Amino acid sequence: MKDSWTMDELNIGDAQSVTITLDEENVEAFAKATGDYNPIHMDNEYAGTTPFGQRVVHGVLITGVVSGLLGTKFPGLGTVARELTSKFSKPVFLGDTVTATAQVVEKNDKLNMCTLKYTVKNQEGITAVKGKAVVLPKRQ
Amino acid sequence: MKDSWTMDELNIGDAQSVTITLDEENVEAFAKATGDYNPIHMDNEYAGTTPFGQRVVHGVLITGVVSGLLGTKFPGLGTVARELTSKFSKPVFLGDTVTATAQVVEKNDKLNMCTLKYTVKNQEGITAVKGKAVVLPKRQ
Repeated sequence: MKDSWTMDELNIGDAQSVTITLDEENVEAFAKATGDYNPIHMDNEYAGTTPFGQRVVHGVLITGVVSGLLGTKFPGLGTVARELTSKFSKPVFLGDTVTATAQVVEKNDKLNMCTLKYTVKNQEGITAVKGKAVVLPKRQ
Repeated sequence: MKDSWTMDELNIGDAQSVTITLDEENVEAFAKATGDYNPIHMDNEYAGTTPFGQRVVHGVLITGVVSGLLGTKFPGLGTVARELTSKFSKPVFLGDTVTATAQVVEKNDKLNMCTLKYTVKNQEGITAVKGKAVVLPKRQ
């Protein structure tokens, strides 16, 4: 697959996706990366006492999957992210397989700036995260 | 230190910080967690050819540090994040020590919802990330 688009090659409505299964290993690596050892993500016993009833994947880990899509696939290598907004509507549980999709919704050729909306759905098609990214795709 | 605040205990202007050094280990763990192996973060040679001139820490990793602050320290355990917006203004390089600070700017007692603004500065006091978090602190 093509791994980077310049502004000229991006059209409103264009979209690409990535799918990943998020498991205990991902959650542990994310905790190590960020220092976020919140027991809602790490501790079965504690998480069992919360409204979620079980451990949930860090929300920002899911934003990270989107950021990987933007930076390595679409628009791809050379893209610089300026702003990312994630709205977390449903939890993602350990073992879930999520698909992140980013779609071009606005282009500002003068500033070489592009806005994409994104959604992250679980294996049942339920939307866990919605968001908006403002990025600078590579110039050429 | 106190590790969780309820809505009643939070006041506009209250703030807390966390400091962490972000190094190769953090970046590698984040890539493993999210699948984001963008060479701008992972590959010295490639990163040397970009405008940054060296590897940079994943922006969303830094948002993850903020999310750890929100979820484990302030407002702390039991907090649920509904929305996180990060604006990335300056790169964070491997080995940088960053301080994330979150401050209460708005409270909606009826919805048990609280808005915090956050900043992440490097060891020179330069702001790398600014953002806004909408969270539900624990009820009691």
